[in-house]
This record gives sequence, C-alpha cells and structure tokens, in this order.
Amino acid sequence: MLRAMQDLNQYIEAQRPIIDAALERELPPARTAPRTLHAAMRYSVFSGGKRLRPILCLAAARIAAPRCRLSTHALETALYPAVALELYHTYTLVHDDLPAMDDDDFRRGRPTAHKVYGEANAILSGDALQAMAFAVMAKAHVPRPYAPNQLVLELSRAAHSVVAGQVEDLAITDRPTAARIRFIHRNKTAALFEASLRCGAIAVGAPRRVLDALSAYGAAIGLAFQITDDLLDAPVITKGRHRPAGATCLALQTTEQARRQAKRLVDDALASVEQLPAGAAREPLEAIARFILTRNH
Amino acid sequence: MLRAMQDLNQYIEAQRPIIDAALERELPPARTAPRTLHAAMRYSVFSGGKRLRPILCLAAARIAAPRCRLSTHALETALYPAVALELYHTYTLVHDDLPAMDDDDFRRGRPTAHKVYGEANAILSGDALQAMAFAVMAKAHVPRPYAPNQLVLELSRAAHSVVAGQVEDLAITDRPTAARIRFIHRNKTAALFEASLRCGAIAVGAPRRVLDALSAYGAAIGLAFQITDDLLDAPVITKGRHRPAGATCLALQTTEQARRQAKRLVDDALASVEQLPAGAAREPLEAIARFILTRNH
Repeated sequence: MLRAMQDLNQYIEAQRPIIDAALERELPPARTAPRTLHAAMRYSVFSGGKRLRPILCLAAARIAAPRCRLSTHALETALYPAVALELYHTYTLVHDDLPAMDDDDFRRGRPTAHKVYGEANAILSGDALQAMAFAVMAKAHVPRPYAPNQLVLELSRAAHSVVAGQVEDLAITDRPTAARIRFIHRNKTAALFEASLRCGAIAVGAPRRVLDALSAYGAAIGLAFQITDDLLDAPVITKGRHRPAGATCLALQTTEQARRQAKRLVDDALASVEQLPAGAAREPLEAIARFILTRNH
Repeated sequence: MLRAMQDLNQYIEAQRPIIDAALERELPPARTAPRTLHAAMRYSVFSGGKRLRPILCLAAARIAAPRCRLSTHALETALYPAVALELYHTYTLVHDDLPAMDDDDFRRGRPTAHKVYGEANAILSGDALQAMAFAVMAKAHVPRPYAPNQLVLELSRAAHSVVAGQVEDLAITDRPTAARIRFIHRNKTAALFEASLRCGAIAVGAPRRVLDALSAYGAAIGLAFQITDDLLDAPVITKGRHRPAGATCLALQTTEQARRQAKRLVDDALASVEQLPAGAAREPLEAIARFILTRNH
C-alpha cells in the first residue's frame, strides 16, 4: 500500500519513464527543421516536471477500466490523453511565463523558454505544443459509451477554462471577491486536473458513475492544489507584477484558514475515491490527494 | 458562370453571412465571463476578413460530395471545419501581430488586438481561438472512408506547419536560400489553404482522387497567394522589423519573375480543377484561383 510519501515518490518515479518515453515518441525530433522550434518545445517539455496530470490520467484509466480489459491495455489506451495533457500543461506554463504575463525568468531552477529562445519563439513553441496536444488526443480511439470526439472535446473545454481563468487572474488589480477567486481557481487549475481524470476514464470506456466520481476527485484535488500553490508562493513577489496576495486565496483568508480549506477538499477527494471500485488501483489516487497537502514545491 | 471578378464578389458576399452566422453560433457570447476574453476573440474574428479559407472549404465540400448527398447537406456538414479554419486563421493573425513578432499596430484599418486589449489578453485570446478551432473541428461527424479523427488530424498537421513556417520566417536575418523561402511559403501559408480544401472534402466523404485534386489545387493557390502577398507588401517596411524583402520571394527574384511564378501556380490550380467532377461547382474554385492573381489587398 502507498501509505507513506516515500511510496508515492517510488510510484511517481516508476510512472515518469513511461510518460517521458511516450512524450519522446510524439514530439518532433530535435534535429528536424525548424530545429529552433523543436528544441524549444523539447526544452519546456523535458524540464523536470512531476508529470502529475498524466500520472492522474493513467491512474484513472487503471481504476476505471472494466474488468474485461487488462490493466496493461488500459494503460496503453490512456497514454495518448496522458501525453496530450502534459503537452497542453507545458504550453500553459510557457505562455504564463512570458514578459506580457507573469514575466518569470526561471522555472524549476532553469531559465524560462523566452529567456533561452526569445519571446517570439516561446510564444510559437507554446502554440505548437497546444496544437500537438490536440493532435495526440485525437489519436486515441475512444470506446463506447463515449462519442469518438469525446476526448478532444474534454481537452478543448478545459482549454477554454484555463485561458478564462488566466484572463481573470491578470485582470485583478484590487482586492478580489471570493466568487472571483473561486472562478480563477476552478478554471485556471482545477479544470485541467478534472480533465486529466476524466480523459483517463473515457479512454477506457468507464461507466458513468465511475467517471462522475473521478471528476469530483479531480476537481477537489485541483482546488486543493491551487490553494497549496498559493501557500507556497505566498512569500514570493512576482518580478513583473506586484501581487503578493492578488488573485490568491490569501487575499481573503489567513494561511491557517487556507490550510483548513485544502484539508476539507482533500477529504472530499478521498470520499470520492470511496465510490470507486475497491482494490489496489485506489491507492495512488489516495496518496496523491494526501501528497497535495504536504507538498513543498 | 463566375467569369468576372464582380461575380466572384457576389459569390463571396453570398457565402459570408452563412459563415459569419456559424461563427456567431460557436463563439462564446460577449456578455458571458470573462467578458474581456470573449470580446477580444470576437473583435479579431469579426474584423472584415474575406473568409477565404471557409469559403474554399465549403466550395470543396460542394464539388466533392458524392451525388447521393444533397448539396445543402454537404454545406451543413462542412460548416464545422469551415468555422474551425477561420477561428484557427484568426488566432495566427492575432499572434503574428504581437510586438514580439511582426509588431503591427493595425490590421484591415483597425487597431490590432494587443493595441485594444493589451498584450497578455491578445496572447490568451489567440490561445483560446486555437483551442476553439479544434473544438469546432471535432464536432463534425466524419463519414467513411475517413477515420473519425481525420479532420482534427488535418488541422493539427496544418497547425504545426504554420508555426514552423513562422519560426523560420522570423529567423531570417540575411539573404535566404530559395529552399528556405519555399519552406516558409509552403508551411506558413499554403498548408492552411490546402487543409481548407481537404477538410471540406473529408467532411463529405470525398473519393480519394477528388481529395488529391483538391489538395493539389489548395497547395498551388496557397503558394500563389503568398507570392501575391509579398508583391502587395513589397513597398511596406514592417515597423518592428526591417525586412523590406526578408523572407519574401522578392529576396531572390524580380517582381516580374514573381508574377510569372504566381501565374504558373494558378495554371496548375486550374489544371487540378479539370480533374474534379464537371459542373457549376467548379466555378468558384476557378474564379478564386484567378482572383489571387489580380487581388489588390
């Protein structure tokens, strides 16, 4: 059982090479023209991310696959959406870091894409990563009861949410309302977590009630993730924009209140896991939910 | 018959309201949150474009539809890809105009999106338009002999080409080779024209040889379009970047040579039309090919 953080780390480290190998297969080789574009795409994709969204997608596929399907088959089927979600997530980071947005020079200890490749190439490599996310998503064969286009529609719905959340976030100039913070957190962060779980489930033809429980789990941990993100970022003042609290949940509550809110959300997520088929496939979902409360980066 | 330019203008003016109504249906209402995002998307989409790509998509659907399908049905089926192509094209214009790219303050006589909504919102509204292009493309039911995901894959392939062409274009600092100019023209412009014809054909289940002829037509007029674009732009020096010739075909040939090349490409396009089913549905394709040689904006 994945009780301790060490076990979760082992689980994540076991999943990452599978996801990285699939990303490697889908991305254009760095030596093909235009090399700058392909190098920029690869620079941002292979930058030490935890691969949390694809790992959630694969975990959802494992627990959601009807018994008649082998779990290895479920994993293969869900690799396309897993890769697509990571490509999509990477593009959002590249664009968020741009001078016109958060103006960040470093991410995960490395210079951001626009510092290395220039602003135009950063914008364009983000654009290409988004297009490739849809291309890879479209490659997955979607089983019944879902429509053949269901995965692409899930990604496009999440994509609109993510951009909507970012627009609202950037628009905040004074003390935001609680409703606005909620809108930003739901759209900017939770929507893609939720989509990660949903896409894994849809890729294996999950029953509707399993899809619903995984959606609820994804939305809850997505909101909790954004709250802990705000708590981790709290002492940092972004270079380009002065918003030590700004659109974060700390604009309206104390860090203690925020921690309690995150705890409640993780409890909700764990309650959703209880509605899923029993067995070892629940464990990574439980461990990831708990990890969000204690993460330090 | 569409012999004269006046007839083509009437044809285009008859098609535009159909396309604009479909765009209106797909875009989020301007009054829904976040209003800035939706207003910025609409500002760029409804900015007086000719709708050439969706018109080509619909024209391809009309000529490619097997006889058993009514042409009104063909038109309805192809409206999704038509709208998707225009949303995609609009996003490329919004991002091309950014300060980090071509740094244009005006397009079609109006201030560009980043001048009206700011740079961050322009980037994000372009991102949202690209995501919506894939969403609308995925809505179309793809008939046999094509795979259900064929339309999304056509768009993603063209999308990667467009970005690759733009990256190579921006990278030019000195006199480019002919091969490089060709790469840029094929990818940056011709790929989306070709995709416009292909998507219309695929949406109605066109036979392969019809698809091939329409692809050849699209590639040829796309290249001709870029050459006439270069000829029209020749006297203009872009504000942000000094490239009076730069990546244009005029870096390597005289305007007279460029005109002859465009004429040859249009002849190739007209030869491809000869391979398509005979009838009135050929006429818009012929007229649009000829229009490209004489267009003045």
